[in-house]
Amino acid sequence: MAVTRNLAKGPLAPKEEPPAMLSPLFTDFYQLTMMSGYLEAGKDQQNSVFELFFRKIPQQGGFCLLSGLEPALEYLENLRFSQQELDYLSSLKLFNQAFIDQLRSFRFSGTVWAIPEGTVVFPHEPLMRIEASLPEAQLVESALLNIINFNTLIATKAARVVHAAGSEGQVLEFGLRRAQGPDGAMSASRAAFVGGCGATSNTLAGMKFGIPVRGTQAHSWIMSFADELESFRAYAHRYPDSALLLVDTYDTLGSGVPNAIIVAQELREKGHELAGIRLDSGDLAALSIEARRMLDEAGFPEVRIVASNDLDEYLVESLRAQGARIDTWGVGTQLVTSKQEPALGGVYKLVSIQEGESWRPCMKLSSNPGKSTSPGVKQVYRAHRDGRFAGDLVALDGETPPQSGCALHDPLYQTQPQKLQAETFQPLLSKVMENGRRLRPAPALTEIRQRGLDQLARLPVGCLRLQNPHLYPSGLSDGLFELRQRLLTAHRV
Amino acid sequence: MAVTRNLAKGPLAPKEEPPAMLSPLFTDFYQLTMMSGYLEAGKDQQNSVFELFFRKIPQQGGFCLLSGLEPALEYLENLRFSQQELDYLSSLKLFNQAFIDQLRSFRFSGTVWAIPEGTVVFPHEPLMRIEASLPEAQLVESALLNIINFNTLIATKAARVVHAAGSEGQVLEFGLRRAQGPDGAMSASRAAFVGGCGATSNTLAGMKFGIPVRGTQAHSWIMSFADELESFRAYAHRYPDSALLLVDTYDTLGSGVPNAIIVAQELREKGHELAGIRLDSGDLAALSIEARRMLDEAGFPEVRIVASNDLDEYLVESLRAQGARIDTWGVGTQLVTSKQEPALGGVYKLVSIQEGESWRPCMKLSSNPGKSTSPGVKQVYRAHRDGRFAGDLVALDGETPPQSGCALHDPLYQTQPQKLQAETFQPLLSKVMENGRRLRPAPALTEIRQRGLDQLARLPVGCLRLQNPHLYPSGLSDGLFELRQRLLTAHRV
Repeated sequence: MAVTRNLAKGPLAPKEEPPAMLSPLFTDFYQLTMMSGYLEAGKDQQNSVFELFFRKIPQQGGFCLLSGLEPALEYLENLRFSQQELDYLSSLKLFNQAFIDQLRSFRFSGTVWAIPEGTVVFPHEPLMRIEASLPEAQLVESALLNIINFNTLIATKAARVVHAAGSEGQVLEFGLRRAQGPDGAMSASRAAFVGGCGATSNTLAGMKFGIPVRGTQAHSWIMSFADELESFRAYAHRYPDSALLLVDTYDTLGSGVPNAIIVAQELREKGHELAGIRLDSGDLAALSIEARRMLDEAGFPEVRIVASNDLDEYLVESLRAQGARIDTWGVGTQLVTSKQEPALGGVYKLVSIQEGESWRPCMKLSSNPGKSTSPGVKQVYRAHRDGRFAGDLVALDGETPPQSGCALHDPLYQTQPQKLQAETFQPLLSKVMENGRRLRPAPALTEIRQRGLDQLARLPVGCLRLQNPHLYPSGLSDGLFELRQRLLTAHRV
Repeated sequence: MAVTRNLAKGPLAPKEEPPAMLSPLFTDFYQLTMMSGYLEAGKDQQNSVFELFFRKIPQQGGFCLLSGLEPALEYLENLRFSQQELDYLSSLKLFNQAFIDQLRSFRFSGTVWAIPEGTVVFPHEPLMRIEASLPEAQLVESALLNIINFNTLIATKAARVVHAAGSEGQVLEFGLRRAQGPDGAMSASRAAFVGGCGATSNTLAGMKFGIPVRGTQAHSWIMSFADELESFRAYAHRYPDSALLLVDTYDTLGSGVPNAIIVAQELREKGHELAGIRLDSGDLAALSIEARRMLDEAGFPEVRIVASNDLDEYLVESLRAQGARIDTWGVGTQLVTSKQEPALGGVYKLVSIQEGESWRPCMKLSSNPGKSTSPGVKQVYRAHRDGRFAGDLVALDGETPPQSGCALHDPLYQTQPQKLQAETFQPLLSKVMENGRRLRPAPALTEIRQRGLDQLARLPVGCLRLQNPHLYPSGLSDGLFELRQRLLTAHRV
């Protein structure tokens, strides 16, 4: 990675800062009206279990890469109502003083189970389980969904782009200017790093999350000088060991690359080497092949070629298939907005509620059969075989874990269950918070990123295919399937 | 709007709070490396003019509704480097002390011209003009683009949805849980209100921006009770004048609507009226027509029907065309992510640079002809005719304003200029900031929203069509066209 080695590799920050805006009012208003309703109905101490899951992988992909867990736990741990927030709620003339007073001392005091951030996950698997009183579990729904949905969406997108770029390529996240708001950019930078990107252009994300920051130069730099060669010389003078020259302002092959070669020669005479050039328009396959030839013939085979211009995983894959000579991929809008499918539809559903001494499993039916839910508290078991992941089983929490094999029932379709054989079954959900306090400190972001890379390497390779991927085996246990069928046939659930 | 009148119409906050995260490091890293380069090259005092514009309306629509200006000015006015931020930059070992010291006293001290927030705008029109030294103008590029791009994207999307819902409908923004990060949700709530939405579910946006907040209830409320009727009764007891009952948890027409009617009758006996019901799945056209019939026959023609479930402008238009009896539209994911096209591609380009006593107009060419820019400092004149907008002229700032007519040159295609006749031509850009200080306080958000509604009412009606809209006349003046041609034919620009 000669092009970027010296360019501001930020030290890894010891600890992430929490997002600044996560007030308890960052929630759908109905959560508050329901909380007040639970108090009125004498249900504010009633215990409940909610699970967070999604139903569909974006872009018909073969996997999702879970992200956002650590920011979500940070949010839960720090939830407090300020006086200003209480005053605002009072001003709405809808809530009585008893409720406002209850909010004043509100803390999230529940238990949380979760799958580790950086794990590959699949539809209908509970990613987080919240055990708390109804009002506590309800208040946090909206923010948890916002955080997990968006972070997972972008980490998954990044993993797709990084896979398309191949192991010899490097992907830089350049999306700040087209991201969905400031935190759209901040969350995206973090999640893109979790998904395998090597660096970001977002300097604040560099500081807050310890992600390496990178940059080249803008057309305005070039245009602010009397001519292109002079602008290249000035930049190379300032950054003799790390300069990346943007060669497409006027004429990529006619002036940009020749001028970059002149500057590369001048740098070499002074004992330095030009780091690279950047292509930002035109036919990136043809231009990169020709620029590579010109650089090689001039004696600069080590000068790297960076490409940008509305790249996504499909374009990266196609350019590589066409023999493009691109070393580093700057990916912006398509990555940070997951442009082709910009939302992950995660949901958060009540699965069990305490009634006296016993618990009643809950299930939502729906006029859309695909929107019905699976009842009861669950665990996910991942099957390992020959060093790879062989499939996932979603079982009831109390069920005996599978040993060497099990049946997988489709969560929606009426079909034959699949058989799953494995050497071991590993439970994915573990307890991460108790009484509203995390049981261990957040891992470093680099550790989460490494987990993601390790996980992706253990997926069946077909799951990584961009189009028509292998369908990873995942389904419900016998016990969960039977409970679901029983409640489905009951008149009222 | 009986359904929502009493449900927490928030008082309008006197003043918006600035977004919390807009540090000067919220910028692409290359802005900082270029700033340091300008200092080294002795160009840090050189004056420049940059313009912000977009090239294409999202979703092949007929207009964009400009939003984000006031947050952008707030950002410019408050830009300061903290010690922590300076320490971080120092830690990168790329910047010398002279540069860090310059940043320590950094203030944005430029002049800004802008089109008012809530104005309808079109491709190639400068929305903001930044006159500042090269480093100042450069640093702020990324954040300005982020703010204007996303806010304008969502205000435009909201205006499309509100137009589809028609004047009798009401659109509520319910997107928090699927938005792109916390600020993706916050910015989206603000911009959706600017675009004409009536309220938001995002309580924090209610507090920060003074937007009315609204909510119904979740399936978890229903499921937490022993049965649906009991859950409806408890909610209606708590909110006797504003209850909206969610009727699709088990069986919309079989149990949900009949139970809602029982509760409506019980409420009426106590002197209250049920506010409404919400449909969240199934065939919303058929279900709303049948639910309306059942409610009307039971004597509740005033009970409103709220619909939600992945709605967008096309679905709203289609449901209305099918005779759906929906009074209020809850629109979430599709609105807050602008799902069909989740990014506006605004850019920020150097258009003129001072060299000694004179100014040199700048123009970027490109291997993609559509990415070339128009040189020189510009003004936009809007033609008014018969009480409506007739077209827009982009002229050089020094040109004589048009009187009763002008020619419009296409900014990209070689074609005949259009003729534009008008009663008056109104300049759209005005000076809003001088020496880094705003010349007037931010208008109230309701005022911005009203401007948007007024502007949309004055567009040629065909511009509002969702598919294949009327192409609003907009083009370059004779003077700007000639300058562009002259620079295009010059070897170097």
